[in-house]
Amino acid sequence: MDSFDALWAELEPIGRYAGTGGYRRFVLSPAELECREWFVSTAQARGLDVETDRNGNLWAWWVPTGVDASQPALVVGSHLDSVPDGGAYDGPLGVVSAFAALDAMRSAAVVPTRPVAVVAFADEEGARFGIACAGSRLMTGALSADKARGLVDRSGRTMAEVMTSLGLDPNELGPEPERVARIGQFVELHVEQGKALVDLDAAVGVAESIWPHGRYRFTFCGTADHAGTTRMADRHDPMLAYARTALGADAAARASDSRATFGRLEVEPNGTNAVPSTVRAWLDARAADEATLDELVGRISREASGAAEGNGTTVELTVESTTPLLSFDVPLRDAVAASVARASAGGGVPILPTAAGHDAGILTDAGVPSAMLFVRNPTGISHSPVEHADPDDCHAGVDALAAVLTDLAR
Amino acid sequence: MDSFDALWAELEPIGRYAGTGGYRRFVLSPAELECREWFVSTAQARGLDVETDRNGNLWAWWVPTGVDASQPALVVGSHLDSVPDGGAYDGPLGVVSAFAALDAMRSAAVVPTRPVAVVAFADEEGARFGIACAGSRLMTGALSADKARGLVDRSGRTMAEVMTSLGLDPNELGPEPERVARIGQFVELHVEQGKALVDLDAAVGVAESIWPHGRYRFTFCGTADHAGTTRMADRHDPMLAYARTALGADAAARASDSRATFGRLEVEPNGTNAVPSTVRAWLDARAADEATLDELVGRISREASGAAEGNGTTVELTVESTTPLLSFDVPLRDAVAASVARASAGGGVPILPTAAGHDAGILTDAGVPSAMLFVRNPTGISHSPVEHADPDDCHAGVDALAAVLTDLAR
Repeated sequence: MDSFDALWAELEPIGRYAGTGGYRRFVLSPAELECREWFVSTAQARGLDVETDRNGNLWAWWVPTGVDASQPALVVGSHLDSVPDGGAYDGPLGVVSAFAALDAMRSAAVVPTRPVAVVAFADEEGARFGIACAGSRLMTGALSADKARGLVDRSGRTMAEVMTSLGLDPNELGPEPERVARIGQFVELHVEQGKALVDLDAAVGVAESIWPHGRYRFTFCGTADHAGTTRMADRHDPMLAYARTALGADAAARASDSRATFGRLEVEPNGTNAVPSTVRAWLDARAADEATLDELVGRISREASGAAEGNGTTVELTVESTTPLLSFDVPLRDAVAASVARASAGGGVPILPTAAGHDAGILTDAGVPSAMLFVRNPTGISHSPVEHADPDDCHAGVDALAAVLTDLAR
Repeated sequence: MDSFDALWAELEPIGRYAGTGGYRRFVLSPAELECREWFVSTAQARGLDVETDRNGNLWAWWVPTGVDASQPALVVGSHLDSVPDGGAYDGPLGVVSAFAALDAMRSAAVVPTRPVAVVAFADEEGARFGIACAGSRLMTGALSADKARGLVDRSGRTMAEVMTSLGLDPNELGPEPERVARIGQFVELHVEQGKALVDLDAAVGVAESIWPHGRYRFTFCGTADHAGTTRMADRHDPMLAYARTALGADAAARASDSRATFGRLEVEPNGTNAVPSTVRAWLDARAADEATLDELVGRISREASGAAEGNGTTVELTVESTTPLLSFDVPLRDAVAASVARASAGGGVPILPTAAGHDAGILTDAGVPSAMLFVRNPTGISHSPVEHADPDDCHAGVDALAAVLTDLAR
C-alpha cells in the first residue's frame, strides 16, 4: 500500500485552510487548480494519457498495447473539489484509491483487455456556483451549458467570467454524448457519509441507491427597522419567521426519519442595531423515498407560511433543484459485491443506500451502468474538517477496488 | 425654509444605494467622504471656519467679530454616516437643520455673544467598525485610541489600516480634553425613532433620557457535518440552538416591554449541504432601566445555554458594549423646551425618553450639558430606506432649533 500512502501524502496539504483545518478546494480556485496539477503529474508519472475534457473533467487513460481503444471503457474515479471547510476524504479518497488500484493491478501484472481510465469530475460539490455534480451533468447534458455559464459565485462573477479570466473558453462547455457512450462502466469509491459500516463492522460496502434530494430557497421579507426604538409589537421581523421554520424543519425531519438542514443564510442588512429586512435561508432536504420527501418539504413550507403570516412578514419558496430516487445497476452492483467479497477474503458485503448525491448517480441517469464502493468512516462525520477514514480501511478500499477493476477489465 | 430644502436636496443623493433605496454611508467609505466634502463646502459658503479634529469630527465655527473665542461655545449638530441601507434622516437631518438654523439666525440678524459651531461627529452608527459614536467617544476618551485603531471591518482591515490607506494618520486619534472643555452646551436635533410624537400630535419634542443599552455576541458552536447523510439525532447543529434563542429573546422582550433584536448573523461554513459548525449572532438589547435590561439579557442567556445544552452544542456570550441609563441635563432641557414652545407658538412640548444612543449621550457622560430635539416620524420607522419625516415637520424642527440657538447664544 506504499502507493496509496505516498499519493495521499502529496495531495493532503493542498487547499487546507489553517484557520479551520478544513479544505476550501472550490472549482477553479488556486487550491483546486493545484489539485488538478497533482492529477496530471500523477497520471504522467504512470505513463497514462491525460486529457481535460470540454467541461473540465480530468481523464487519465490506460490503453495497453494491443487493446482496441474503441471498446467500452472501464472508468474509475471521483472528484477533487470540496465543500467550504470540508474534509480530506470526500472525493479525493476515490481518486487516490483509483490510481493506487491501477498501481496494484500493474504490480500483479494484470493487463486489462479494454481501456481503463481514472477520472476526476469537476465541481462535484457545487460549492462555488451552487449546482452539485456540474462537471458530470454538463458532460451528460443534464445541465445546460447556457445555464452553467450564467451561474454566479458569491463574489458575483459568472462561471463564464471566471473561466475567461483563467484563459478557458466557456463556449467549450456542453454535452459530449460520444464520450459518455464510450464509458462501459463507471465505478466510484467514496468515504461513507454515515456510520452504517461501523454498525455492520465492515471496512467496505457497496451502494444500492441514492435518496431523493432537493434544495429550496426560502426568502423571508419584513421591514428593516431600528433595533432600539421599534416596539416588539410594531415589528415585522423576518428573522423570527425564519427561526420558527428552522425549528419546524428539524421536528418534521425527525418525525419522518428524513433529513432537513438550514445550513446557509443571508441576512439583510445584517447590522446589529437593525431589524432585518430580508432573511434568505437554504433548505437541504432528503428522504428515503419521493413521497416522504414531498411530504417533508410540504410540512416545512406550511410551517414557514404560518410563521410569516403570524408576524406580518412574507415568505417565498424557490425550488433550486430536485433529484429523484436513484437505484444503481443491479447486475454491476452484484458483480462488484462479489469482487469485494473475494478481496476481503469471505463474509458478506453490506449493500447500503446513501443520502448523498454523487457523480455515479448522474452517470446512472445517463444510462451508464455505475457502481459505488464505500469505505468505513469511524465517526460518520463528513463535510467537516474532522471527516476521517482509518489507513487500514483506506488500504482495504484500494484492495477491494483493485479486485473490482481486475475482474471487470479482464 | 429655502435654505433647508436646498441643503437637503444637495445631500440626499450621496451614498444612496440604488438596489435598495437605502443609504450606505459607512465611515471613510467613498460615500461618507463625499458627505464630508458637502459639509466643508456648505460651511465655507457661509464663511464659517472649518476644521477636522484629530478623531475625524467636522467642525464649522461661527465666531462673530468682537466675540471672545475662548468663551464656552454653543455647539449644534449630529452625524452624517448611516447603518447599512439606512434612511436619509437619521443623522443628516440634524446637520442640515443646524446649518439651516444658522441661516435663519443670520436672516433675523441675530448675532451670538459667544462662539457657535456646527458639528458632524464621525462614525455615530458604528456600522463599519462595530462601535457606535466612535468619533465622540474618542474625543471624550470614552473609547481608547489603541482599541479604535485595532477595530476590524468586515473585509478584515483595521481602522488604522483604512486611515493609513487614505493618507490619514491613525496616531492622531485620541482624547481632546481641551476641545471638550470648550463646549459650553451641545444641542442635537434628530428624527424621532418611534411614534410617540405621532400619538401626541406634535411636530417637535425634547429628549428626557436614553435607555440603557447593550450589544452582546452569542457564539454557538457545534459540529460541521453532511446535511444528507447525518441522522438528525446524531447532529450537533448550532443553528437550532440559535433559532430557539432568537424566539426566546423575542418573548422575553415582549414580556418586559423592552427590546431584543438578533439582526446580524455569521454562519460557518454557510453551505447549503453542510450542517453549520458555528453560528455567531449579535443581540441588541435595550430597556427602560438597567435592572430590566440585566434581567432581559440574563433570561436570553439562560435560553441560549439551555438550547445549546439540549442539542450538544455550546454557546459563549461576549459583552461587546454596554451603556447605562442616561438622563439629559435638566436645566438645559427645560430651557430648550421653553424655546421650542415659543417657536411653535404655544402648547406644551413633549419630553420623551428614547431607546436609541446618540452623540449627545456621549457628551453628557463627559460632563457637557447636552439636549436633544426630536422631529416627528410619521411611521416611526428608522434604520430603513422608508424612514421619513414630512417637510413641514422638518421646517418646524429648523424653526425650533433656531429659537433654541437664539435664546442660548444671546
